[in-house]
Amino acid sequence: MLMDKLAARANKVGPVCLGLDTQVSFLPEYIAKKDIDIGEKFFEFNKAIIDATFDAVACFKVQIACYEALGMSGMEAFRKTVAYARSKGSIVISDVKRGDISSTATQYAKGHFEGDFETDIMTINAYMGIDAVSPYFPYIEKEKALFLLVKTSNPGSGDFQDILTDSNEEVYLRVAKKVEEWGAPYIGESGYTPLGAVVGLTYPEEFLRIKEVMPHTFFLIPGYGAQGGKGEDVAKVFGKNICGVVNSSRGLICAYKGKTENEDFASYVREATLFMNEDITKWL
Amino acid sequence: MLMDKLAARANKVGPVCLGLDTQVSFLPEYIAKKDIDIGEKFFEFNKAIIDATFDAVACFKVQIACYEALGMSGMEAFRKTVAYARSKGSIVISDVKRGDISSTATQYAKGHFEGDFETDIMTINAYMGIDAVSPYFPYIEKEKALFLLVKTSNPGSGDFQDILTDSNEEVYLRVAKKVEEWGAPYIGESGYTPLGAVVGLTYPEEFLRIKEVMPHTFFLIPGYGAQGGKGEDVAKVFGKNICGVVNSSRGLICAYKGKTENEDFASYVREATLFMNEDITKWL
Repeated sequence: MLMDKLAARANKVGPVCLGLDTQVSFLPEYIAKKDIDIGEKFFEFNKAIIDATFDAVACFKVQIACYEALGMSGMEAFRKTVAYARSKGSIVISDVKRGDISSTATQYAKGHFEGDFETDIMTINAYMGIDAVSPYFPYIEKEKALFLLVKTSNPGSGDFQDILTDSNEEVYLRVAKKVEEWGAPYIGESGYTPLGAVVGLTYPEEFLRIKEVMPHTFFLIPGYGAQGGKGEDVAKVFGKNICGVVNSSRGLICAYKGKTENEDFASYVREATLFMNEDITKWL
Repeated sequence: MLMDKLAARANKVGPVCLGLDTQVSFLPEYIAKKDIDIGEKFFEFNKAIIDATFDAVACFKVQIACYEALGMSGMEAFRKTVAYARSKGSIVISDVKRGDISSTATQYAKGHFEGDFETDIMTINAYMGIDAVSPYFPYIEKEKALFLLVKTSNPGSGDFQDILTDSNEEVYLRVAKKVEEWGAPYIGESGYTPLGAVVGLTYPEEFLRIKEVMPHTFFLIPGYGAQGGKGEDVAKVFGKNICGVVNSSRGLICAYKGKTENEDFASYVREATLFMNEDITKWL
């Protein structure tokens, strides 16, 4: 089961999930000034980073919005990026946060677990309920997994996720319990279900309450670095075990800025990746 | 403001939103057997339907999942479909249900309100809060609008949307109030805000409660036809005014099935569209 593999990998090399949220302003000068299409520039940037870091990360996360923003050329860069990282043996999370009714979810599953955009893990918004999630279940045995939004890292996440219910617990806690419940029949040998949870590092107290009701859930944790989270915060959340992957995007892929604008840029990304790993694991 | 235009159009020609949720099994034989790429087949199907119905519908809705399912070829069909419908002067809703943190939402806005995939209206999942929505606001003055998920039409919509809060109202009602509040500063001459709401026809009582707290909101209403909703149900929700558009996808674009497999298929789609319009407006 794929979440077993991701958990094993995170425990072996460290929990860094490198986010390829590529943007035009992130490109080093030597790529930016090339006379090629913007999507090709994105792919060249990503490929150099994947080559420099694939042995040091638990997984890659590719934020599809950054590619949709560029239209067809961006979609081609997305396709090539996901495929290239997978061809290196890496686990890839396509951060698509899709969420729709059953028949539509079936189409999204087909779109991202098969064909051109085939990935290993999709992020999913479960606000529409179980029928927005269950169409992905047949892919579990094909070594696919999901991360469902539970408590996101952004300032506005409280607007609806923190609403207090009549049983005096927040909506995010209700979602957390459901996700754990939905995943229970599929628990793998690692003890985790294939339905992971996205929980932001920016709300550490909430995280601990969530962890309590999700003992078999592996986490995708945004909020490290640029969003304020530190290695020490991760360690508090993890406790004794690496029970999730920690994403950093800008903090890693722009780590070369001010140091070089040339082909050696990816070595700085690697350095930052190793530093982040150390910054987290030294507390464990 | 775009929602003014959509409201005016729905009041003039009727509230039908024709959903281009195209799937392989929906294609008539004469298109299915052509020796062209699957995306080209989808576009040929959609183009014939748009040509046959654009004067009879309030707007078109294009469900991106059906196109993502086909990879790059599907994305090209999506691009061409949205662009073609807009070139006929139609208002197009890209049913993408995106929802992500501010910086990512900015990328999605760029992706669907500019460039290759430029559309008029995006559907948005607001579960992540205000910062997942506000990045789209700068596009309001560029004649763009949103439909935000409030209470969806699917059976599982109750899982989280119906959770009772400590103030004894459901989560969807809390979302409804927030969406009305966020849109208030942008009310147009029609009295509607540019932030519409998606509310399923399948829950008519809930709809009336939502309408009460959303007096300035225009609705996108799924659940008619295949999902069980009838013209009479729409009329109950509308009251005296057409205050939303009513989507039907399969019920319209597959209306030719059993009647023809040839070029004349779109005339049956038109007929079904006119029938749906009549089925709703006769009760008003």
